[in-house]
Amino acid sequence: MATVIIHATVTLDGFMADVGGGVAWMSGVRTVADDEAVVKRVLDHIGAVVGGANKSATIDDGEEPYGGMLKVPVYLMTHTSHEPIEKNGTTYTFVVEDISLAVATASEAAGDKWVSLLGGSISRQCLRRGLVDEIHLDVVPLLLGDGIPLFAGLGERVELERLDTSGFADEAHLRYRVLR
Amino acid sequence: MATVIIHATVTLDGFMADVGGGVAWMSGVRTVADDEAVVKRVLDHIGAVVGGANKSATIDDGEEPYGGMLKVPVYLMTHTSHEPIEKNGTTYTFVVEDISLAVATASEAAGDKWVSLLGGSISRQCLRRGLVDEIHLDVVPLLLGDGIPLFAGLGERVELERLDTSGFADEAHLRYRVLR
Repeated sequence: MATVIIHATVTLDGFMADVGGGVAWMSGVRTVADDEAVVKRVLDHIGAVVGGANKSATIDDGEEPYGGMLKVPVYLMTHTSHEPIEKNGTTYTFVVEDISLAVATASEAAGDKWVSLLGGSISRQCLRRGLVDEIHLDVVPLLLGDGIPLFAGLGERVELERLDTSGFADEAHLRYRVLR
Repeated sequence: MATVIIHATVTLDGFMADVGGGVAWMSGVRTVADDEAVVKRVLDHIGAVVGGANKSATIDDGEEPYGGMLKVPVYLMTHTSHEPIEKNGTTYTFVVEDISLAVATASEAAGDKWVSLLGGSISRQCLRRGLVDEIHLDVVPLLLGDGIPLFAGLGERVELERLDTSGFADEAHLRYRVLR
């Protein structure tokens, strides 16, 4: 059975992107992405991706999830139906508004691998619906001061179990199990 | 010379307290506070404390910083002048609005130990003024969903260097140096 994870890189103050959605602040940070063996070990675990509606724009402008390194099915939440898109060996399937359906479909596609949830809105919706098994955060050594948060607006309490706390280069890796 | 640190226990979503200021959510969490040797090692480093105006209320109701375990000078920010208070071996000195003065005075009192900054407002004010040397967070395995944040409203970017990332019982300990 697939493990559904929130997988995000955040600043120490919990932002995924600056106010304009940019991640230029990430440049210069020594991350796991600098170590190919570590990246491969992480990516090998991911069997499918669920992204937010705004991610659909990334298909056209070339910004694919995980920098296009990951060749697994991607499910994108939209408000209107859309035919699947094939690009660079990845299939993008559009799911209209039903996040539970998107996660269930992605879980089936992922087999016993991870379903990676990308984006704050998707992550919070899935937390509220009890669809998340684990949270994996890569914390960048920076306070951004303002921006697009991962958890803000969640509005409910979620108990966690600490699975792993470790450092790699500049980043801190925090891994938790969601308790139900 | 003293090291000025932001010292806070926060949830994974960055809250220090719930919306009403309560920390009842902390009960049941296995923290370093359960290990006397670890607590002593941490407290031995602290030479003075700077707290927010709201902390002055804690002197009367018995809630002292660090549960009263720490016998070091405490400096409390207020809006109106107030005579120092002695309670249970601790001197509480009130500083009217000048946070830089409070930190300078506390630093002198602390010698080569830590000045511990308590509370979100104090912490953010000191970050903006470049008064903070290190940030020490104890992260509790919980998403609170809403509450009183440590960093929200900071409004400016602060570069950090990761010093330590470790786990103890339920908590993750994240320690950073503030780069200037």
